Amino acid sequence: MSEFRFAVNVLPKPGILDPQGRAVEGSLGHLGIAGVSAVRVGRRVELTVEAPDEGAAAAIAERLASELLANPLIEAHGVERIA
Amino acid sequence: MSEFRFAVNVLPKPGILDPQGRAVEGSLGHLGIAGVSAVRVGRRVELTVEAPDEGAAAAIAERLASELLANPLIEAHGVERIA
Repeated sequence: MSEFRFAVNVLPKPGILDPQGRAVEGSLGHLGIAGVSAVRVGRRVELTVEAPDEGAAAAIAERLASELLANPLIEAHGVERIA
Repeated sequence: MSEFRFAVNVLPKPGILDPQGRAVEGSLGHLGIAGVSAVRVGRRVELTVEAPDEGAAAAIAERLASELLANPLIEAHGVERIA
């Protein structure tokens, strides 16, 4: 068994209202930052999976992402291998 | 001026308590998922920056990350160029 580390990125699907993104955009003026748009706010979960090989580990991370970490009705997710 | 898209990943620093990570770990048993550990839960913010070149755009994204999106006392952040 080896250990593999993954990141699961969860973001609101296109077209889904993103009030946190609007809040960030609304704060840019106060900071004097211009030229920033299309802000989407989601979650990032990093985790270690112990499995016989990377494929099996990625399958576990994907299952965790789709069954626990993301709400498939309103969120899209991606699983990324990290160091 | 061109547009560049970035992701800002914000995660609790090592040693900082992460109750959301503990909650995810506590849910794994109910799902019948084994072998997952060291779960850290953070945020991911994706945004578009309009700037003369990629370096200038990355500098704006970094400023936004460090001044608005992350709390440097308890969170580490990274800025990543995405498609």
